[in-house]
Amino acid sequence: MTAQTKPHPNQQFIDVPGSLWRLQTPALVLDLDAFEANVRTAAKLASSHHLKLRPHAKSHRSSTVAKRQLAAGAVGMCVQTLGEAEALWAHHISPLLLASPIVAPEKIARLIDLVLAGCKIMVVVDDHANVADFAAAAQSRHATVDLLVDVDAGRDKLGVRDPSEAVALAQQIVRHPNLRFRGIQVYGGHVQHIYDFHERQTAAHQVHARARAATAALTAATLPPEIVTGGGTGSFQFDLEGGPFNDLQIGSYAFMDVDYLRVDFGPSGPWPFTSSLHVLATVISRHVAGRVTTDAGIKSFATDGPPPQIVKGCPAGSNYAIAGDEHGRVTLPSGAAVPPLGQRVLCVVPHCDPNVNLYDFLHVCRGDQLVELWPIDARGRSI
Amino acid sequence: MTAQTKPHPNQQFIDVPGSLWRLQTPALVLDLDAFEANVRTAAKLASSHHLKLRPHAKSHRSSTVAKRQLAAGAVGMCVQTLGEAEALWAHHISPLLLASPIVAPEKIARLIDLVLAGCKIMVVVDDHANVADFAAAAQSRHATVDLLVDVDAGRDKLGVRDPSEAVALAQQIVRHPNLRFRGIQVYGGHVQHIYDFHERQTAAHQVHARARAATAALTAATLPPEIVTGGGTGSFQFDLEGGPFNDLQIGSYAFMDVDYLRVDFGPSGPWPFTSSLHVLATVISRHVAGRVTTDAGIKSFATDGPPPQIVKGCPAGSNYAIAGDEHGRVTLPSGAAVPPLGQRVLCVVPHCDPNVNLYDFLHVCRGDQLVELWPIDARGRSI
Repeated sequence: MTAQTKPHPNQQFIDVPGSLWRLQTPALVLDLDAFEANVRTAAKLASSHHLKLRPHAKSHRSSTVAKRQLAAGAVGMCVQTLGEAEALWAHHISPLLLASPIVAPEKIARLIDLVLAGCKIMVVVDDHANVADFAAAAQSRHATVDLLVDVDAGRDKLGVRDPSEAVALAQQIVRHPNLRFRGIQVYGGHVQHIYDFHERQTAAHQVHARARAATAALTAATLPPEIVTGGGTGSFQFDLEGGPFNDLQIGSYAFMDVDYLRVDFGPSGPWPFTSSLHVLATVISRHVAGRVTTDAGIKSFATDGPPPQIVKGCPAGSNYAIAGDEHGRVTLPSGAAVPPLGQRVLCVVPHCDPNVNLYDFLHVCRGDQLVELWPIDARGRSI
Repeated sequence: MTAQTKPHPNQQFIDVPGSLWRLQTPALVLDLDAFEANVRTAAKLASSHHLKLRPHAKSHRSSTVAKRQLAAGAVGMCVQTLGEAEALWAHHISPLLLASPIVAPEKIARLIDLVLAGCKIMVVVDDHANVADFAAAAQSRHATVDLLVDVDAGRDKLGVRDPSEAVALAQQIVRHPNLRFRGIQVYGGHVQHIYDFHERQTAAHQVHARARAATAALTAATLPPEIVTGGGTGSFQFDLEGGPFNDLQIGSYAFMDVDYLRVDFGPSGPWPFTSSLHVLATVISRHVAGRVTTDAGIKSFATDGPPPQIVKGCPAGSNYAIAGDEHGRVTLPSGAAVPPLGQRVLCVVPHCDPNVNLYDFLHVCRGDQLVELWPIDARGRSI
């Protein structure tokens, strides 16, 4: 028996009342009530605005979460990597939108493998040579590949910068019988985490203007985009109200995180979404006055955002700091009782997407009871 | 067929000359020549100083790497988590030193499972209640558990702070027939990454003083420690020369990283170890003057250290910045030719331990040819 085939060390706690506080750690914990409410709320908001929801699987990398989002009315899933697409398709999840370009011939071949296997998948392009490569590969394998033109939303990272370039790419696509032009993507990733409400609103409207300009140019060229996709959790409120999109690709909304909780929702707040994703750590040493050491550090928390935020398990006012690859440090407020060895500490994750990617399982809890373990089956599938 | 059972997407490139530059990405790449030289050099240095080498598997989380280190003369492996221990023991790798405390009853039970299965494993303790828990669990299962007392090296994180406490814990251990006192650990994690040579030397000597004080107190109490373990890559040069350790637990030396390359080895430099661990990324977009976008971001690089350092694939003077969860940005020097779409970019990893933990495989290259894929079989095994 190899270690890999053993049951998960926390399997024994499923259906045990109060087991959240006994789990072996570090463990990634999903508050099922909060998660379900987030999924329901987003679905309702999109549907009441007659918009399609295409949640982004880059946030959760889990076919189980994707199935929940689809059951709530999502029209399909976004993925950011071919590995994520393959992992979802292994569960017959489709249609998929691959929202980041792929350029290697072997990756284009893998995408066509998916198409030929019956997966409905579209992919974004922003380059003529890339379109030509897709055309040649699709033709040689008698496949049809669906493409969206990626339009730079102002983040200077991906996408064509001018509407005329979008038109030129779309024209190249429609000229080829093995390619199909499906629409445009205008993803304002730089907008999502702007904390100030008005600044974020202004930035979202700038993205909208770019999407409208590209749509207008394509329409004038008799290539009106069927799909105009974009948006994210931070701009969701603006994308719903008179935005240019007919298709929204939000991701973090299902989990939220410390960084999103810092984003000001504005006058109609609070956020319609609450934190559902936590890391559970354990106090493993207590030798220094006013602090304790836990077992969750750099390998258990995303380190590109703010520090984790303690929600339960330590006196109010306690702060969590990452203190090495495998350790955390909780600084207690003055005069607080020191938690005992073995005390569990529950923290909101700093940044949900990379945090999920560190774990193989979501510990799904109803209240403080573990009810299921959901595999994060696309974890690590960046390739 | 599930996605999981498919061959690795880069399997096809094994033994193909020049295949490093055709690998699908992001890929974690090991330069086998550099890695082998690092392993050989450390083994030779330790042996010429009559010291035991017990490399730390937290850096690589790979049974294949561990086997190479053992073949080069290591006396055993350190691990930082029980999951790592189980993954190594699945390959019959032993003896193991679990260098961070475990406190949950279920974890203590898992450790005893390993002992009863024949794995020679020791674990560190810094708390009387924890020792009592080990004693009770070992007694009830008719096992003997080997313990080391963890002594705070000055990092205020783990370990007893005073030699008298080390003596008290050792006395508690030897009183119990199911426990065995094996020695002390004095790990100066805070010393390893001090860039300045003299500051690092001073800090290492302070750690040495603490290890000597604990050893002296235990010896005076007729409990001389058989094992005095500690050290790391950054203090290795000082630990070799007249240090208090008889057992060194270095880890990063096998790979090195951008942060360690900033550490000044001092007058007898350069470092005896060179970078062997890289991330290969691909240029996927080129729409902004003076820069290109790649496919490797937060999910492909550790973000707790400096930025990745480009070594090949872009004009000299190019800089890599992480630009989102799945993207990187290469800024080119003024006037440089823009790399074509599909160009591969090879970067030294920022911080080796958490960087390895993002990947399932090491792409092992001899020169620029992929020769093997080594599974990172303890990846994610923090629990």
